[in-house]
Amino acid sequence: MSVPYEEIDTPALIVDLDTVAANIAEMAGVMARNGVRLRPHIKTHKMPEIARLQLEAGAAGITCAKLGEAEVMADAGCDDILLAFPLWGRPKLERIAALRERARVRVSLDSVEVAEGLGGVGGASPDDPIEVFVEVDTGLHRLGRPPGVPTAELVAAVRKVPGVSVAGLLTHAGHSYRSTSLDELRAVAEREVTDLTETAELCGGELEISVGSTPTSRFGAAVPGVTEIRPGTYVFNDATMIRLGVATEATAAARVLTTVIARPAPDRFVVDAGSKSLTSDGAGTPGWIMVAGRPELSMRFLSEEHGIGRCAAETAGPEIGERLELIPSHACPVSNLFDTAYGVRGGRLDHELAVAARGKVR
Amino acid sequence: MSVPYEEIDTPALIVDLDTVAANIAEMAGVMARNGVRLRPHIKTHKMPEIARLQLEAGAAGITCAKLGEAEVMADAGCDDILLAFPLWGRPKLERIAALRERARVRVSLDSVEVAEGLGGVGGASPDDPIEVFVEVDTGLHRLGRPPGVPTAELVAAVRKVPGVSVAGLLTHAGHSYRSTSLDELRAVAEREVTDLTETAELCGGELEISVGSTPTSRFGAAVPGVTEIRPGTYVFNDATMIRLGVATEATAAARVLTTVIARPAPDRFVVDAGSKSLTSDGAGTPGWIMVAGRPELSMRFLSEEHGIGRCAAETAGPEIGERLELIPSHACPVSNLFDTAYGVRGGRLDHELAVAARGKVR
Repeated sequence: MSVPYEEIDTPALIVDLDTVAANIAEMAGVMARNGVRLRPHIKTHKMPEIARLQLEAGAAGITCAKLGEAEVMADAGCDDILLAFPLWGRPKLERIAALRERARVRVSLDSVEVAEGLGGVGGASPDDPIEVFVEVDTGLHRLGRPPGVPTAELVAAVRKVPGVSVAGLLTHAGHSYRSTSLDELRAVAEREVTDLTETAELCGGELEISVGSTPTSRFGAAVPGVTEIRPGTYVFNDATMIRLGVATEATAAARVLTTVIARPAPDRFVVDAGSKSLTSDGAGTPGWIMVAGRPELSMRFLSEEHGIGRCAAETAGPEIGERLELIPSHACPVSNLFDTAYGVRGGRLDHELAVAARGKVR
Repeated sequence: MSVPYEEIDTPALIVDLDTVAANIAEMAGVMARNGVRLRPHIKTHKMPEIARLQLEAGAAGITCAKLGEAEVMADAGCDDILLAFPLWGRPKLERIAALRERARVRVSLDSVEVAEGLGGVGGASPDDPIEVFVEVDTGLHRLGRPPGVPTAELVAAVRKVPGVSVAGLLTHAGHSYRSTSLDELRAVAEREVTDLTETAELCGGELEISVGSTPTSRFGAAVPGVTEIRPGTYVFNDATMIRLGVATEATAAARVLTTVIARPAPDRFVVDAGSKSLTSDGAGTPGWIMVAGRPELSMRFLSEEHGIGRCAAETAGPEIGERLELIPSHACPVSNLFDTAYGVRGGRLDHELAVAARGKVR
C-alpha cells in the first residue's frame, strides 16, 4: 500500500498526516486551556477521516455549511452538527427533519422567514424545538443584522416562532482576513466576542456565543463570554494563513503536487495545475500561492489547467519533469476539486483519503 | 420525468437545451461556410451528451485538456481527440498508449523533452508515429515559443524525435479576453492565424493551423490558412462573452439557479450559491456575474457558499425564497463543480445530464 511519494501522479492533493495531527492537537489545546468548546468547520477538508481525528482530539462537534456535507458526516458517525447556513424550501426542510433523527443538529439563520420554515419541519414542536443560532454581522457584511438592538429585536421575533428555540448568537469574522498584523487580528477577535456578549445581554436568557475563523480563533478563545469556536482552515492552513502570521510553511499540511511540464522562456515555467486544482481565490495578490521550499519561485497566473510561474532568467530554474508542491491561497475550496487526497507521512504515501463531502452543493 | 423548473432544488447548474442546440448550430454554420474544421474544446461542458451534439452538428472531433477527460469522451464514442496539453511521466504515457488503441489521439507540446517522452510510448514508431501539434505563443505567454524562427527551430528539433510526427501548429489566444472591442478581437484573431501560417512556411511541409478561443473563432475562421478552430465556451457562453460582445443574455445557456436565503440589509440580498458553485474567476470586475433578467441587481462578492448581491435600498428588492438565475463570469470551471446538470427546455426540467468528465484532474 505504501508507495513512494515519487510515484503519485500529478496534479494531486497531498495531505501531510503528521502535520494535520499536530495542527489538530495545537488548536484543541488552545481551546481546552481556555475552557472553550471547539466545533471545527469541516468545509476545509470535507473528509470524514479528518473529522473523526478532530472529534477524537476533543472537538465538541462539527460545523457544516451544507446539508449534503452534514449527511455525509452523520454517515461517518458525527452526531453533533451545527449547520451554519439558512435553510430554505421543502426539499431541504424534509432532509433536515430526517437528519435530526440521527444526530443533534442546530442551524443558523438571520430572518424570521427562515425560522418559520424550520419551525414547521417534522419533529420540531414545542416539546422538541429545532435549536437555532441567530447570525450577527460583526463586520463581514454577509449575513446578519448589526450587533445590539437590531439583533436583539430579531432574536425576540425568532423566539416567538413555534417549534424554534434560540440557542445562541453566531458570527463569522471573515473580515479578519483583511488584517495586516496580529494586533489587528486580536482586535477583530475581541470585538466579535464583545459584540455578541453585549447583544446577548440585551436578549436575556442563556445564549451560546459562537464565533469562528482560523485567524481569530486563538485570540477569541481568551475573551470572556465566548462558549464555542468554529475554525476550519487551521487543520490544513494555506498561503493566506501564512501571510496573516497564524501559520508557517511547516504547518501548511495540504499542498497540490505538480509537475513542471514546460519551460517556454528563461524566466517562465509551467506546471500541470491551474485553477481547476487550486481555484482562482486570491488570484494576483502577492504570494497568493507559494512554492513550498522554493522561495525563489513564484506564481504569475493560472488558467484552468496551467499554472504559470516565474523564475529568475539568470538561474537554471526548475526543469521539465521536476515536481513542485504548491501551497494554495485558500485551502477550503481546493479540497472541493479532488475526489481523493493522498495522505503522506515521512515522504511516503500512507493511504488515500476520500473527500466524501466534496461537491455537496445542496 | 419532466418536473417543473420550480421544483429543482438550489443551487443547481441548469442548461437550456434549446439555447445549447442553437449555439452549436451557429458555430458549426460559421465554420462550414468558411471551410474550416471545428474541434470544440469539451472543457466547457464536460458532458458526453453535449459532445455528441457537437459531433452530430459536424464537428471534426473534440479537444480535451486532460487524459481523464479524453478517456471519458472516448468511452462515449468520441474517436478523434486532440489532447491540448503536454503529457509527462510514465503513468500518463501508458494511458495515452492505451487510448490510442481506441481513438485517433493527437497531442500538443512545446518542448523536445515532452516529444521524447511521447515518442517512446507503446505503439509510437516510425510506422505509427504519435502526431503532435507544436504550441506557439501568440501573446498569452503561457506555453510555446514566439512565432517565427524560435518555433521553426523547435519544430525542426521535434521532427528529429523518433516516433513523433509534427501534424501542425497550435495556439490559444487567451489574451483576446482582454479586448475592449470587436475590432480588437478581430485583430487578435487575424494576428494569431497570420503568425502561425508565416511560421508554418518557415517550417516547410504541410502543417495544420489550429487556433482557438470563443471570442476570436468567428473572426479567425475567415482568415486564409487556418484549418481548424477549437472554441469551447460558445456552447454555453457566460458573462465574459457578453462583456466581449460575442454573446447575449439570450445565448447564455448555462446558469446557476439560486434561492435568496437572506435580506440582511435594505441594499443587500444573499443567495445560496458562492464560489463553490460559481468559482472566483473574474471576482470583483464590473458585471462579472449577471443576474439574468434583473439588470437592477448585481453581485458584490462571493464566499464559498454565499453570493452577496446589491439592490437599490429604495426598492423592495428580491424576497427571501425568490429564485434567481446567475450567469457565471466563466462557464468552464463552473461545470467542474457539479456532478450533474439540469437540462431545461421551455421552462421545464427535461432531463439530467451527467458531467462525466468533471474532476478529471489527471
